[in-house]
Amino acid sequence: MYEHTYEHRVRYRECDPMGVVYHTHYLDYFEAARTEALRDLGVAYRDIEESGTIMPVVSVEVNYKQPAHYDDLLHVRTIFAELPSVRVPIDYEVTTAGDDRPIVTGQVTLCFMDAERQRPTHPPAPIQRAFERAFEVASSEG
Amino acid sequence: MYEHTYEHRVRYRECDPMGVVYHTHYLDYFEAARTEALRDLGVAYRDIEESGTIMPVVSVEVNYKQPAHYDDLLHVRTIFAELPSVRVPIDYEVTTAGDDRPIVTGQVTLCFMDAERQRPTHPPAPIQRAFERAFEVASSEG
Amino acid sequence: MYEHTYEHRVRYRECDPMGVVYHTHYLDYFEAARTEALRDLGVAYRDIEESGTIMPVVSVEVNYKQPAHYDDLLHVRTIFAELPSVRVPIDYEVTTAGDDRPIVTGQVTLCFMDAERQRPTHPPAPIQRAFERAFEVASSEG
Amino acid sequence: MYEHTYEHRVRYRECDPMGVVYHTHYLDYFEAARTEALRDLGVAYRDIEESGTIMPVVSVEVNYKQPAHYDDLLHVRTIFAELPSVRVPIDYEVTTAGDDRPIVTGQVTLCFMDAERQRPTHPPAPIQRAFERAFEVASSEG
Repeated sequence: MYEHTYEHRVRYRECDPMGVVYHTHYLDYFEAARTEALRDLGVAYRDIEESGTIMPVVSVEVNYKQPAHYDDLLHVRTIFAELPSVRVPIDYEVTTAGDDRPIVTGQVTLCFMDAERQRPTHPPAPIQRAFERAFEVASSEG
Repeated sequence: MYEHTYEHRVRYRECDPMGVVYHTHYLDYFEAARTEALRDLGVAYRDIEESGTIMPVVSVEVNYKQPAHYDDLLHVRTIFAELPSVRVPIDYEVTTAGDDRPIVTGQVTLCFMDAERQRPTHPPAPIQRAFERAFEVASSEG
Repeated sequence: MYEHTYEHRVRYRECDPMGVVYHTHYLDYFEAARTEALRDLGVAYRDIEESGTIMPVVSVEVNYKQPAHYDDLLHVRTIFAELPSVRVPIDYEVTTAGDDRPIVTGQVTLCFMDAERQRPTHPPAPIQRAFERAFEVASSEG
Repeated sequence: MYEHTYEHRVRYRECDPMGVVYHTHYLDYFEAARTEALRDLGVAYRDIEESGTIMPVVSVEVNYKQPAHYDDLLHVRTIFAELPSVRVPIDYEVTTAGDDRPIVTGQVTLCFMDAERQRPTHPPAPIQRAFERAFEVASSEG
């Protein structure tokens, strides 16, 4: 398992007439969170694309338990529960600063795809290795 | 069952560097589609809110099968499979003009909530009746 | 001069905690409005891009006079005051159904650019001709 | 004068099929930048609203000189050139890390408004004082 936490300050444009974050924006937070989680592993998504592999989203699932409000500081936890294969399911938990109970949870599944051939493919070797190292460190610490 | 189809033209701002609709925007299409489906039943969501009931989103689930491209004309089918109770699960199927196979499917579950007490509640009577009438018509036509 | 009117229904996700359309979304309405204005002239922006010309935005200017609210039906008037040259300034006026006073006005200036050479260029001949025809019709009707 | 710099990492969802930041998103960056500039002065916009004053946007103006790309780290400089009165014009300059030339510049003018009476009003005293202190510090350093 590999985990990473990303902080996001809720913006005015993200809040609706109920005064809370409109539900779609959590998927934007998840995008930023997984990009920074990958960067923390030494993997820039920009480099993946430049090497000819793209990672389209295959499915999303989000559960909303409590609302977040304007200017709240959110913690978005990205959890890679398994090593990436052709598909990469990634879990998310959103909490507000100072409270451990998730207000929103979700899963976004991406896949590795050969951009030119438009076909599913295995993760590029550098990504595979970055994850293996991260999982080893996590398990030796666990 | 009650069904409604909403048309959406894909906008430039909705497309990403892969040249296809970025995955989060389908949830925006779903919002517009269910609002127009309700209006077609004689129910304006604005009136629901003004009567003191809000309908926050409880969960979403989306499956992406094929990409949509800039300027595509999408058909977004909204399907109410059951009469609304406290929770209202709504199904969606997105197709491109001239092809019956869904490129994206999804489910968004809303709930009725008393705005002041912030507690789940039953659907207001006019909504309940509008759905009952629509289901009767559909079953007598079926 | 050539004019076109596009209708937009205000969506929930576009409204902020003040209960009104968040200011950035008018630029989204302008994009949809000019795309449909061009289509009405017989010009699909998708075809422009496929022929190797892109139209990046050079500048925008928006003035907000009155707010729009959730579920309002807006009329977005696109006004081409002059024939396109390298730069294409386009004016916009937004009104709500049944009231002639603009609630928002704006101008978005695009330019024609050779996609490969990344250099400003003149409008492709079919676009030039489409505008000339439209301006002639408008002036003979005026 | 009072200045503040906010950093923003360009997200995938913000980039269009030309591979560059779609023009409307700079206004989102400006919103985040001015909110953090105010916070740095000791003023939380959330508190302003809770005290009964809102700050709607009156006008925007943006000039696009160079594109930004996916994953670029942008510096968004917020510049308060004058003390706030009923209207608050705020200037912005966007640069990419390591290059001083602005790629985008803009101005967003907000106004102070009494939320209940829906009328323009003077800035609340704590905000006025926070700006006066900041301008004094800046001028004594200048």
